Amino acid sequence: MLRFPKGRSAKTGFEPGTPFFIGTKNDSKTTLSIFAYDSKSFTELSSLSQVLRFLNEGKKIWINVDSLNDLSVLRSICDMFNVHSLVLEDILNTQQRPKAESYDDYVYFVLRMINLSDSETEFEQLSMVFSKNFLLTFQESPGDCFGPVRDRLRKGDSKIRNLGCDFLAYSLIDLTVDTYFSTLELIGEEIEDIESVLLKNPDENTLRSVHSMKMELIFLRRAVWPLREALNSLERFDARVVSSETKLFLRDAYDHCVYVIDSLETYRDVVSGMLDIYLSSVNNRINEVMKVLTVITTIFMPLSFIAGVYGMNFKFMPELDSPFGYPAILALMVIIGISMLLYFRNRKWI
Amino acid sequence: MLRFPKGRSAKTGFEPGTPFFIGTKNDSKTTLSIFAYDSKSFTELSSLSQVLRFLNEGKKIWINVDSLNDLSVLRSICDMFNVHSLVLEDILNTQQRPKAESYDDYVYFVLRMINLSDSETEFEQLSMVFSKNFLLTFQESPGDCFGPVRDRLRKGDSKIRNLGCDFLAYSLIDLTVDTYFSTLELIGEEIEDIESVLLKNPDENTLRSVHSMKMELIFLRRAVWPLREALNSLERFDARVVSSETKLFLRDAYDHCVYVIDSLETYRDVVSGMLDIYLSSVNNRINEVMKVLTVITTIFMPLSFIAGVYGMNFKFMPELDSPFGYPAILALMVIIGISMLLYFRNRKWI
Amino acid sequence: MLRFPKGRSAKTGFEPGTPFFIGTKNDSKTTLSIFAYDSKSFTELSSLSQVLRFLNEGKKIWINVDSLNDLSVLRSICDMFNVHSLVLEDILNTQQRPKAESYDDYVYFVLRMINLSDSETEFEQLSMVFSKNFLLTFQESPGDCFGPVRDRLRKGDSKIRNLGCDFLAYSLIDLTVDTYFSTLELIGEEIEDIESVLLKNPDENTLRSVHSMKMELIFLRRAVWPLREALNSLERFDARVVSSETKLFLRDAYDHCVYVIDSLETYRDVVSGMLDIYLSSVNNRINEVMKVLTVITTIFMPLSFIAGVYGMNFKFMPELDSPFGYPAILALMVIIGISMLLYFRNRKWI
Amino acid sequence: MLRFPKGRSAKTGFEPGTPFFIGTKNDSKTTLSIFAYDSKSFTELSSLSQVLRFLNEGKKIWINVDSLNDLSVLRSICDMFNVHSLVLEDILNTQQRPKAESYDDYVYFVLRMINLSDSETEFEQLSMVFSKNFLLTFQESPGDCFGPVRDRLRKGDSKIRNLGCDFLAYSLIDLTVDTYFSTLELIGEEIEDIESVLLKNPDENTLRSVHSMKMELIFLRRAVWPLREALNSLERFDARVVSSETKLFLRDAYDHCVYVIDSLETYRDVVSGMLDIYLSSVNNRINEVMKVLTVITTIFMPLSFIAGVYGMNFKFMPELDSPFGYPAILALMVIIGISMLLYFRNRKWI
Amino acid sequence: MLRFPKGRSAKTGFEPGTPFFIGTKNDSKTTLSIFAYDSKSFTELSSLSQVLRFLNEGKKIWINVDSLNDLSVLRSICDMFNVHSLVLEDILNTQQRPKAESYDDYVYFVLRMINLSDSETEFEQLSMVFSKNFLLTFQESPGDCFGPVRDRLRKGDSKIRNLGCDFLAYSLIDLTVDTYFSTLELIGEEIEDIESVLLKNPDENTLRSVHSMKMELIFLRRAVWPLREALNSLERFDARVVSSETKLFLRDAYDHCVYVIDSLETYRDVVSGMLDIYLSSVNNRINEVMKVLTVITTIFMPLSFIAGVYGMNFKFMPELDSPFGYPAILALMVIIGISMLLYFRNRKWI
Repeated sequence: MLRFPKGRSAKTGFEPGTPFFIGTKNDSKTTLSIFAYDSKSFTELSSLSQVLRFLNEGKKIWINVDSLNDLSVLRSICDMFNVHSLVLEDILNTQQRPKAESYDDYVYFVLRMINLSDSETEFEQLSMVFSKNFLLTFQESPGDCFGPVRDRLRKGDSKIRNLGCDFLAYSLIDLTVDTYFSTLELIGEEIEDIESVLLKNPDENTLRSVHSMKMELIFLRRAVWPLREALNSLERFDARVVSSETKLFLRDAYDHCVYVIDSLETYRDVVSGMLDIYLSSVNNRINEVMKVLTVITTIFMPLSFIAGVYGMNFKFMPELDSPFGYPAILALMVIIGISMLLYFRNRKWI
Repeated sequence: MLRFPKGRSAKTGFEPGTPFFIGTKNDSKTTLSIFAYDSKSFTELSSLSQVLRFLNEGKKIWINVDSLNDLSVLRSICDMFNVHSLVLEDILNTQQRPKAESYDDYVYFVLRMINLSDSETEFEQLSMVFSKNFLLTFQESPGDCFGPVRDRLRKGDSKIRNLGCDFLAYSLIDLTVDTYFSTLELIGEEIEDIESVLLKNPDENTLRSVHSMKMELIFLRRAVWPLREALNSLERFDARVVSSETKLFLRDAYDHCVYVIDSLETYRDVVSGMLDIYLSSVNNRINEVMKVLTVITTIFMPLSFIAGVYGMNFKFMPELDSPFGYPAILALMVIIGISMLLYFRNRKWI
Repeated sequence: MLRFPKGRSAKTGFEPGTPFFIGTKNDSKTTLSIFAYDSKSFTELSSLSQVLRFLNEGKKIWINVDSLNDLSVLRSICDMFNVHSLVLEDILNTQQRPKAESYDDYVYFVLRMINLSDSETEFEQLSMVFSKNFLLTFQESPGDCFGPVRDRLRKGDSKIRNLGCDFLAYSLIDLTVDTYFSTLELIGEEIEDIESVLLKNPDENTLRSVHSMKMELIFLRRAVWPLREALNSLERFDARVVSSETKLFLRDAYDHCVYVIDSLETYRDVVSGMLDIYLSSVNNRINEVMKVLTVITTIFMPLSFIAGVYGMNFKFMPELDSPFGYPAILALMVIIGISMLLYFRNRKWI
Repeated sequence: MLRFPKGRSAKTGFEPGTPFFIGTKNDSKTTLSIFAYDSKSFTELSSLSQVLRFLNEGKKIWINVDSLNDLSVLRSICDMFNVHSLVLEDILNTQQRPKAESYDDYVYFVLRMINLSDSETEFEQLSMVFSKNFLLTFQESPGDCFGPVRDRLRKGDSKIRNLGCDFLAYSLIDLTVDTYFSTLELIGEEIEDIESVLLKNPDENTLRSVHSMKMELIFLRRAVWPLREALNSLERFDARVVSSETKLFLRDAYDHCVYVIDSLETYRDVVSGMLDIYLSSVNNRINEVMKVLTVITTIFMPLSFIAGVYGMNFKFMPELDSPFGYPAILALMVIIGISMLLYFRNRKWI
Repeated sequence: MLRFPKGRSAKTGFEPGTPFFIGTKNDSKTTLSIFAYDSKSFTELSSLSQVLRFLNEGKKIWINVDSLNDLSVLRSICDMFNVHSLVLEDILNTQQRPKAESYDDYVYFVLRMINLSDSETEFEQLSMVFSKNFLLTFQESPGDCFGPVRDRLRKGDSKIRNLGCDFLAYSLIDLTVDTYFSTLELIGEEIEDIESVLLKNPDENTLRSVHSMKMELIFLRRAVWPLREALNSLERFDARVVSSETKLFLRDAYDHCVYVIDSLETYRDVVSGMLDIYLSSVNNRINEVMKVLTVITTIFMPLSFIAGVYGMNFKFMPELDSPFGYPAILALMVIIGISMLLYFRNRKWI
């Protein structure tokens, strides 16, 4: 959602660890969806109070929170799982760089979901707190792309039910990175469109498109680039919270992330090259216009001058009285005009 | 305060370790505020002479010095806490890069406070010498943003009273970094303003705004960039002077600092792109003006030439005597003019 | 084949490890060629069912798969050699960066073959799964450059028959890198062509050539750059799958790869410099055209003005009645014209 | 002194370790100043022959050599202290990058002194060979900035008399780095001057100033940048030749050096930005000039055309005979002119 | 010799380790010069067959091969010293980056000799295979700069006779790097020439000089840059093939190489700055030309218009009949002209 940092300064002066929402507020209501599952069972819980019981029965728990507006709900969830106050503070700060932080019993992971709307890319922060037997996810607003994971959880014959919550967290990260590819493809198409316009008939709107594409890429890069490091450090975390099997899959997600970054860099190079081309082709057209102007001026100025000479009112201008004066001058003008044209054709100006 | 280094050369030739003020002098008087506290008590001392007694009672001491003009006061404070002469020299040099230096019993940390005034950013150097049981802070001039920390110290139920002076130092660093965010937000707004002007109606003032914004960012970057390394090395210092609990919080401050640097880099990219756009759009407008000139010239030069031809004074010009000469020529001129216009419309010049 | 990522987003939501073709489909039929060999024998098998028998006899097996369209064939091959589902997923994703991944018993290696067609470079992905006694290669479409290796295999007196399949894999990698050199040479020639045009008679087509060359280099670099890292990590893999003798040769392939990257970087610098030259020379020509225009205008405007003055119809203009008026004015005009010409020759405008 | 390498090629072919002067010769005579001191005494020796006696008495020796012209003197000094022939070769090569080299019993350190003259920066190489009990310094020409150190040596109550020659060497390095600050300040002022001209009334001289400033910074950077690494490696040398106390001070010199490099980088960014501004503002002025031209042309071309039409000599032009023809046409001309002006004011061209 | 890679693709498909000449063939005959020496004796051998005998007597052997055309000779030399087939392949490939490769008993080192001819830099590859008791050198064509080393070998009182062939190899490397300095000096002079033209009277030839200088630097950099790494790795090789005494001298060669790279980078910066200046000064001159055009147009257009008005043929134009009409109009024209001139002088256009 955020491009330039906003609203962060309001927090200045509060004690470190104070939960404080930073970012652009929306008016959605905080809603929870709670899943308790193991390899054999799957239950959708309706309230937080049931969670501890299922947890004690050895079930794995996934609590997804949509909207960060109700602080008391967030606080009670964090208390339930002994989450550090600095983590809650981070969850509420929706302007963070993607990062992975290891605490004693759990991992805090934050990344950005990208939603491509009509005009410009929108970012939504996704915070995750997970261990092997629980996963908490916090989104800024309702609506996400996790439907396929929920379906696989419900079906029950899937790997996702047998492995720990670290694998569930990986699955969500993987899905999020997958959505980056849609963005990449859309941008790729847009760039190809702009490029074809650029090489045919560029105008000031093309310049504006190139500029806004460049800005878009700057912000996208900023959202994706630190994810690489975050995924990398996740692979190095203790096996107690991230199993070695999950790490094998994380290597895959890391590869995808590198591919996305790589593509963004390529796009940047392409767009950068387009700006150079634009500037060169504008100068080219200035040159073309200048040539037309110069050709016209160079042909008609001498001709008009000759006409002007014979428009002078001197009493004694012998040419004026000759009956061949007029046709001779006309012929002279035609000759001058044609030789000028030939000269310019020779210099390849026309 | 400083953009380009100034006044530093006056020190050349003095023995290393000689205290010598470097920077821009102000005329404020050196004033002290001294706090002695532990988890149960809080006292505001009125003179330096009381400090040692409170220190021996196990109280933690924070001495804040506003203005570096009174060298004797600085010297007596440094002597009281056995601070190395090189540190005093550094405190008096207000043109330093942020850094953290470890000495046997204490840490020297220096960073820059940013005050956004109307026209341009102002920097003020903040030097800190701290250990677990004392903190010395030195500011160039009175006025700071540490009110919230002082309030929390006074209130007494806060974490800041229970933990060592390293945490107090962290709190001040954190507050200082927090104020960077206000600067970021203001710059972000200014950039958006410039950008909207740039895409609509850029003139030479826009160019000047972009230029001064770019300069501003260069100086800001220089003030913030080394802080990252300084905070990082603080995290690696001996646990005797910086406790592991404080280090957890320092990781948070480090994250904020990285975020600020990241935003500054993004701003640089954006402003850089704006300069390209400006140059391209100026050339575009040259092209537009050239087209107008060329269209006008190309239409009226031939017409004026025709008028000139029939303004010649030759005796024998049969067209002049024909009663249809004048309307025929007028018609010809209209046809030429209109066909030129059509031609230019065809080439999309008008 | 691919420049910008395409078709990748269709996979979003599938379980990790699900085989799913990503890229641009072609309609070629999946065909296999299976070689079983050791130092003494060489057999070309006709069906997959014979493979296991030969493998058990201690023969080395190379299965080459052209076209990825028949998923069932791919799956049965992977099952036969216990290849992980993530690898099959990667084989089907034809939009990967070159990489080397080590699994317990085998190595997965992916790189890009470059086919230079008329207009633009085409990329085809080559996936390899190999161990000491088997090699699986997967290509997007029929047709490759591996003929020489097949010939050497058939001949039987070659090193390739005596060493393990890791050496066979190296031979294919080496051949692929060798074909990069043809591409380098062709690009080098094209760049020299463009440069000679650029320095003589650049027009807008030159600009387009430079631009498309730049784009070409961006995509080539992207295909080759990660191969360096992949080859490097291959050298560090366990000696059980890559023998030390093969590693000596891999160092050679690594050197070639570095040379290719180095050349691509040089090309980039050269093409970049060409754009600067183009822009400068366009501005130069604008300057030339401007000079012509200004010379013409500066000569004829004053002359036409003089003619205009003596075309005025005032009753009392004494010059008009003088018999020397006309020749005097003509002489004046010639003098003005010539002195203007001399002035411009002096300023080196003509 | 040197900007581009010169005279170095004359050495080609000589045996490595052959002493051979490289650089720009001056005609100063080689002079020595020899100090022998310890914490209690200070003697200024008049000839080299006395040196060994004082050295054996446990005195510390500083020999400063001005001008490298007398090779025999240099050789006898080097022999006296068993200095390696490669070091003597390096001392005579006045075109070196700053570096620190550790030999068994001594350190070779070379850096560049900067003398700001009127027109451009001059560099002079300072070579140092030092151990704990002797320091040899070699300068290209007489005159240096080491007066303060000599005074402190003479005074005798200073730290410099008690510590080893490594501290004396540090003091000279520190002084040299201090003089860099004068250079920085002068450049800073010059840049501010150029910038204020640039934003008000830039002409081709401004361009030349920016260009030569840029060149100056390139050469300064080259002289200072490697010093950072040299100082850093000095801190890691064996404690036998560089004491840990001196290393604490070297950290300070290292900080100053980093600050200088940092400022030079900032200057580069600023000057780079100035070039962009210059180019943009030249194009801006082209645009302004073009507008004036176009306004004038667009107003007077149609008017002149109308005048031309009524200057035609057709027999039958009814308007000419009307008594209102002339005032009507004049009115028409005024209307056309004013509406043109309004049009251009509307488009903000005037 | 080579700028862009050429002829490399012909090798595609050959077995790795196959000797195959790559590069630009010359028609020189392969000639050998063979030296056998130790500290006491020096013999110049006439044929390869004598080599083994001298080698067995403990003599050190240097075989220099000029021209790579006779493959059989190269092969017999390599066989004699048990050189790996990959090394022979590399010797024949004259398009390599400088590198150092360690084999069991010897080192393969390759670098590029630079010969400055009239128009452009030429590169020649120098391959070295050496151990402590033999050195093989392979050059593309006859003629080199190793005369001084041969002289020192013959003289016999030199260090080169006493130390191993690794020192001999170093001496040749050192000489080659020394010749780089001549190139540096020549380029430096050329750059200064171009710069002085650029600041006085730049034309399109200046642009071409700058461009070709830039290209030259790109290729030089490519030839020298990897040498740094190669020399560095040579210093880390086993003491069995490179003695520690030679390594001390290699550090010196490494310093020289770094100095050369450093200078090339500085040149690049300088040339880069020159392109900016060129572009700016072209635009400046466009601006100057435009001003002349605008001044002329602005002065004469209104004057011509006035003349045109009084050239109209209306019957009733009262001014025409007044005897003061003509002088009044002339006076008006002079006033208009002069005020225009003053206006432009005021705006500093003339």
